[in-house]
Amino acid sequence: MAESRIANFGAGPSALPESVLVEAAKGLLNFNGTGIGIAEISHRSKEFGAYIKETANLIREQLDVPSTHEVLFMQGGGTGQFSAVVLNLLARHRLLHPDLPEHDRILDYVLTGSWSKAAYTEAMRLAHGATVRIAADSRAHSADGKSFDGLPPHSGFTFSPNPALIYYCENETVSGTQFAGEEGTPTSFPFHLLPTDAGLLPLVGDYSSSFMSRPIPRLADHAIIYAGAQKNLGPAGATILIVRKDCIVDVDAAAKIGGAPVPISLAYRPYAANDSMPNTPSVLAIYISGLVLKRNKALGGVRYYEEFNRRKKEKVYEVLKEGEARGVFKSKVREGEGSWMNIVFGVLGDGAEARFLEGAELRGMKGLKGHRSVGGIRVSLYNAVTEEWTDQLVAYMRDFIAEQSEAPATTTAMEA
Amino acid sequence: MAESRIANFGAGPSALPESVLVEAAKGLLNFNGTGIGIAEISHRSKEFGAYIKETANLIREQLDVPSTHEVLFMQGGGTGQFSAVVLNLLARHRLLHPDLPEHDRILDYVLTGSWSKAAYTEAMRLAHGATVRIAADSRAHSADGKSFDGLPPHSGFTFSPNPALIYYCENETVSGTQFAGEEGTPTSFPFHLLPTDAGLLPLVGDYSSSFMSRPIPRLADHAIIYAGAQKNLGPAGATILIVRKDCIVDVDAAAKIGGAPVPISLAYRPYAANDSMPNTPSVLAIYISGLVLKRNKALGGVRYYEEFNRRKKEKVYEVLKEGEARGVFKSKVREGEGSWMNIVFGVLGDGAEARFLEGAELRGMKGLKGHRSVGGIRVSLYNAVTEEWTDQLVAYMRDFIAEQSEAPATTTAMEA
Repeated sequence: MAESRIANFGAGPSALPESVLVEAAKGLLNFNGTGIGIAEISHRSKEFGAYIKETANLIREQLDVPSTHEVLFMQGGGTGQFSAVVLNLLARHRLLHPDLPEHDRILDYVLTGSWSKAAYTEAMRLAHGATVRIAADSRAHSADGKSFDGLPPHSGFTFSPNPALIYYCENETVSGTQFAGEEGTPTSFPFHLLPTDAGLLPLVGDYSSSFMSRPIPRLADHAIIYAGAQKNLGPAGATILIVRKDCIVDVDAAAKIGGAPVPISLAYRPYAANDSMPNTPSVLAIYISGLVLKRNKALGGVRYYEEFNRRKKEKVYEVLKEGEARGVFKSKVREGEGSWMNIVFGVLGDGAEARFLEGAELRGMKGLKGHRSVGGIRVSLYNAVTEEWTDQLVAYMRDFIAEQSEAPATTTAMEA
Repeated sequence: MAESRIANFGAGPSALPESVLVEAAKGLLNFNGTGIGIAEISHRSKEFGAYIKETANLIREQLDVPSTHEVLFMQGGGTGQFSAVVLNLLARHRLLHPDLPEHDRILDYVLTGSWSKAAYTEAMRLAHGATVRIAADSRAHSADGKSFDGLPPHSGFTFSPNPALIYYCENETVSGTQFAGEEGTPTSFPFHLLPTDAGLLPLVGDYSSSFMSRPIPRLADHAIIYAGAQKNLGPAGATILIVRKDCIVDVDAAAKIGGAPVPISLAYRPYAANDSMPNTPSVLAIYISGLVLKRNKALGGVRYYEEFNRRKKEKVYEVLKEGEARGVFKSKVREGEGSWMNIVFGVLGDGAEARFLEGAELRGMKGLKGHRSVGGIRVSLYNAVTEEWTDQLVAYMRDFIAEQSEAPATTTAMEA
């Protein structure tokens, strides 16, 4: 089986550990000896009830989620949460400050790429009279004034004093930037700039593409962290939330005093009150996520993955830098501000990008084409991307550099 | 493998064909020879792009969906659609009739059980000034005036002249009633009573628990038909919609003229414009649904299942009637108004229900406990429930009747 599987560097849905897939294949026919497959078992069965709790607890353990926060499973991915965070946190703000004029409810957005931009756009759609503002925008700090090619400097952030919501996307899958620096360094999220006198902060971290890849800095200071499963955790279809309990509010009570009604499938409270199952959850995706989490635990959890992913990304950034020095590659992100999960670069020269992709495919490496909005190459190094695959890619990149450097500008040895 | 699997009469998530599960287990490791498992492949890959289109087309073919309607995949199940139908169809009504006073936008609900009641409750939450009314209520026609124990008679329906939405739930999974009669008979949905001068009708059919179990009567006259996959089609996590094109509206245009903003994950238009993939869909659940649909096609599609399911339900209703005559069972639904998919009945006598369930489990039959709100026994006979399982259950019910009839009131041969 192993030899027929190929190296998958796709940006998501993305690679899963083979051992997990083998186990999941068995579970499809017979879940934990019940005689019923996991896709067929009632979500109300005691077996699945125990499983979903265990899976939430594995997340709690591995990320050190404090008892102030709930771990929930929903559906709809990051896009569903773009709406849900606005609706639930505006309801919370209204219940806390019922008499505030609508335009004084402020939603602060940090824009660092297409995902935070999409979240911001959705906030504008749902604002219901509240003010959606930009707390930082990395484009303002780019060379051309319009590219998401790095992180905003800490001096570029201004937060509102009593916001209803502060949103940032920790890892931008498309443009390939990440707040990955050690706390306090210029490439970290500027927690020290957050307002200090506004009570429990409504800080939302979109962790869709880096969840479980390393510890979450200052997790306990977040109101909401969310992630689709389909990068580091499991199949698409499950959305994981870590929600501070004061953000699980009675949205109907808020609607009664002027708030927008919240579609029931986007309100957090019914999920928190029913072990994530006010209705049928995405059983199969949660099951496979649980298998991945058990494997993670055996390996050493997020601290293991932090070192594992650090090694992988360092190897790729190193060869990328070599390629830049030789005029073969060009990073699309400023040095030091790139993502651990998604490394985005161009291949210089006519047709060189297509040759790079073809050569990779010939060597059994797939999923390397960049997002259509950015172009170039994107190397995704999620947890299930092995060190062997990474080494194989790095070796290929090195060979490619050598060939391109030796060849005349418009042709290569590979074409000969 | 087969002998370790048990007869699963669960109400959903529910049984899937074993041959499909065997194939899906292979696909988890390697999807269609790509070398990448189905849970790992990009939803933007050409392979999955072709697969999701093929799956939509299999639904189109098997249900004779006309070109006036789109087949879409979403997430969030029936509960998500309780909200989505209200938001999208109120937007449509507003665009068609911008100057109508809000309370003249009427949402007509047919109440026949806990699912239609939940849909009605959600409409009340989201009405935004519109009027939510009851077009029929089966409780009004029950002996005790409060039970969902049958269908409303056609004389009990009154529809509004120009509604924004008309909702009914074709099959009530919990209470076990279904509009299953031939058109025009008292147990059919009264299509002939629908307003005839209101243009294209915004008729919504919740088909969550009977989708693909038989042809959909008057499908082309519906605005929206929706269903979670997890009964007759596949794993939980995929929601299937059949939407008439005039109901795929620009919700933002409606919001600009006073409508409620619609969370982007609940708006139909982005799904219709992007082959159901404005964001990452529930890839694995759609994949398995596609395998089921291919198998269905080979067997003869919904016409095959109509006959297959008719035979199964007739066998169970027959033995249920025998049990009623002998004072052992008591149907919770009036004769002739029961569901083909979920047959709900009580077992008379102290502790008899528990004995029935224990005996069933001993014979390898699971999932028979009724919903907690109704109690008793629920036999779900979805497509993947085999005729062998049905025969096994019927034989057991017959044995149980015999034993109960012979035994003194408070003890049985099984206890001896």
